[in-house]
Amino acid sequence: MIIHDNDKLILITNDDGLYAAGLKTLTGVMKEFGKVVVISATESRSAMSQALTVKQPLRVKLLEETDDLRMYACSGTPTDGVKLAVNQLLERKPDLLVSGINHGSNASASVLYSGTMAAALEGCLYGITSAGFSLNSYSPTADFSACEKYIRIICKMILSVPLPQGVCLNVNMPAIEASEIKGIRVARQARGCWQEEFEKRKDPMGKTYYWLTGRFINHEPESTDTDEWAMKNGYVSVVPVSTDMTAYDFLSELKTKF
Amino acid sequence: MIIHDNDKLILITNDDGLYAAGLKTLTGVMKEFGKVVVISATESRSAMSQALTVKQPLRVKLLEETDDLRMYACSGTPTDGVKLAVNQLLERKPDLLVSGINHGSNASASVLYSGTMAAALEGCLYGITSAGFSLNSYSPTADFSACEKYIRIICKMILSVPLPQGVCLNVNMPAIEASEIKGIRVARQARGCWQEEFEKRKDPMGKTYYWLTGRFINHEPESTDTDEWAMKNGYVSVVPVSTDMTAYDFLSELKTKF
Repeated sequence: MIIHDNDKLILITNDDGLYAAGLKTLTGVMKEFGKVVVISATESRSAMSQALTVKQPLRVKLLEETDDLRMYACSGTPTDGVKLAVNQLLERKPDLLVSGINHGSNASASVLYSGTMAAALEGCLYGITSAGFSLNSYSPTADFSACEKYIRIICKMILSVPLPQGVCLNVNMPAIEASEIKGIRVARQARGCWQEEFEKRKDPMGKTYYWLTGRFINHEPESTDTDEWAMKNGYVSVVPVSTDMTAYDFLSELKTKF
Repeated sequence: MIIHDNDKLILITNDDGLYAAGLKTLTGVMKEFGKVVVISATESRSAMSQALTVKQPLRVKLLEETDDLRMYACSGTPTDGVKLAVNQLLERKPDLLVSGINHGSNASASVLYSGTMAAALEGCLYGITSAGFSLNSYSPTADFSACEKYIRIICKMILSVPLPQGVCLNVNMPAIEASEIKGIRVARQARGCWQEEFEKRKDPMGKTYYWLTGRFINHEPESTDTDEWAMKNGYVSVVPVSTDMTAYDFLSELKTKF
């Protein structure tokens, strides 16, 4: 793959692994935009948040190279993969980083645990225009075709008008027919959390172990300006997400306490 | 350990493991505040961010129990540990969750990768008053004694005046003599990132591997209102951190794009 000066260079990653249907859909769309480099793990690395591999060395393998696509397998987390691509593998800084399409919603508090969104945040820290895409279905055989149109619209927008420094997009798409999607809705992160989170079991030796499980609770189901509301009501939700986690609203009050 | 109605219940965790000096110092101080439950891994789980263990079951072991302290070893990440404690192990919701004292700074963008701060954010999602403490020294034999005074001041404050919903504290302490610390400074997260992040090596079979390494670059060293500035200038930095990552400043502009 030769990257010419006027080519857009697109970096793609995900946390469901190289063989995930969502990655295939995203790669297909991104080929329309420029030269594509994919880096991901061979197995899924879900709920890795922005974790880094610090105790193990990392391995990378070039799996495939054509005129418009290069594909790497990486042994680490989604964030490791972005760091390796930007620092060691790419000829230059990419014009766009896209992550996903995740099998499952990353709306509300899920943004904090999401490997998909962590990769977008990592791109953001490097000053790369970045977005994470997720479909509200955990099924490995989910139909991602309705997503394509919205990925095109959103990527065109962020390639033409740069996002502010330190801001990337968290895009969550409802798992419904293309004809039923009402459009794009810019939203804020809903307040919510997970409940009933463990299944307690006994192993064959009689010892206790726990499986993480649970269900998401939206703490403000009545609010119509959130990502959860948008997705539940047939819209593609777009939340601008900041790498700056400072609670600015509380800063001046906190200053009076010390 | 019997927890009476008027006892404060304090949950402690960290990402440097149960035998870390920073955890020992924090546990010592927190015993002054109430009944203490510690949950952590036997080995360090640094840079785990808010990762969850979803592909493996989790194990928990009660290691020690006295009148004022209970200590659990947990096989998972810091966030898994908080979830397990709150959902399965504790008699009731704790009055306070403290995490640390981390061996190394979690100022600026490090908050995004930090297991220490992820545990505090997890507490926050459960509505528990939470704070993460870090010392700006990676040494396993660092002297944490100067931290004690500031942990007392900060915990007294947040136990008497509740933090807003979804906000916890990221406290970073300079690794200097107690007498040299100038006091507490409320700050915002500095803009910055890591550079020169990999060492490329060959294994004995001649194959390439990478070790994550690098150094932190403060993108705004001249700003005097950041956590990096405070810590570098002899202050204990306190940043209010939000679980809501929405970039509110950009929300209305983004709405005009679609």
